[in-house]
Amino acid sequence: MKKLTQQEQKYLLESIRNIPDFPKKGILFKDITTLLNNKEALNFLLKHLQAYYKDKNLDFIAGIESRGFIFASMLCAKLSLPFVPIRKANKLPFETLSCKYELEYGTDSIEIHKDAFRGIKKAKVLLVDDLIATGGTALASYELIKKAGGECVEAFFLLNLKDLKGYLKLKELTSVYSVLEI
Amino acid sequence: MKKLTQQEQKYLLESIRNIPDFPKKGILFKDITTLLNNKEALNFLLKHLQAYYKDKNLDFIAGIESRGFIFASMLCAKLSLPFVPIRKANKLPFETLSCKYELEYGTDSIEIHKDAFRGIKKAKVLLVDDLIATGGTALASYELIKKAGGECVEAFFLLNLKDLKGYLKLKELTSVYSVLEI
Repeated sequence: MKKLTQQEQKYLLESIRNIPDFPKKGILFKDITTLLNNKEALNFLLKHLQAYYKDKNLDFIAGIESRGFIFASMLCAKLSLPFVPIRKANKLPFETLSCKYELEYGTDSIEIHKDAFRGIKKAKVLLVDDLIATGGTALASYELIKKAGGECVEAFFLLNLKDLKGYLKLKELTSVYSVLEI
Repeated sequence: MKKLTQQEQKYLLESIRNIPDFPKKGILFKDITTLLNNKEALNFLLKHLQAYYKDKNLDFIAGIESRGFIFASMLCAKLSLPFVPIRKANKLPFETLSCKYELEYGTDSIEIHKDAFRGIKKAKVLLVDDLIATGGTALASYELIKKAGGECVEAFFLLNLKDLKGYLKLKELTSVYSVLEI
């Protein structure tokens, strides 16, 4: 469970592109597609995560739509673990459990299949998203995993926007690991 | 490049759940989440795909949002290849190329980053989605890969709804492989 050195973090961070004023004026967006399409950087990241999580005795990895799907799926393939999607409302076809979270203006909700963990009691679940900011979606996802009978033993994010403090709220509930902090 | 036997196909097909009347009356929806959260079935599929694609000399795997992200990402991890997202309009933060496709009523469009293939000339790209039906999104994605300077050497789908004949249009342009046909 070795974390990355500062130099290794710097290498990964430099593979991520900064986009000013996206999705709106004043926001410096972290474009992870330049990490994903960079073979060396991506393989370096996945090798690290595979080593980091291989002895965690996880049962499932849950990814949050849509960028969370990417890292969760890659990690599933590396660890030979099954995948559970957490999706926006009305996307999952079977019976779902739902959880609301707050946006800047109004609310939104996300869903999980009620039988996502196949009846395995207290299934150990790793929650995955690309980024944690204010933590709204992550906290709602934590709740969904619990509602579906699972136990969220850790939440993983590639990027943690520390100033927005979402990770602090989540840390009161479960273990949190982010490779890069900004 | 061995394909699955009929018995192996049957095994995978039985891991997929049928949902009647989703997303609307009269449609029998193929719910792949029951394959994704089934460790044995998922590992069987990924082992097959890894063997199937390991000698294809691919440069990139492009996944179509959102379910295509899942299979494309898993395959990237298995083959140590970089990932390129094809997303719905206005989701990608950098300069994009765009392609329209027809829906039952009206049109929609999808996008790729113009530098998705990092300037690699004629990059060999595997296009991935969970399912091909009428082929609208797949054909638009094929065009996008070409516009971005890549060469779509094959398109992969877990499921091919043969009656809707989308795969026939795509076959005129590139190689098509679907594990399961319905």
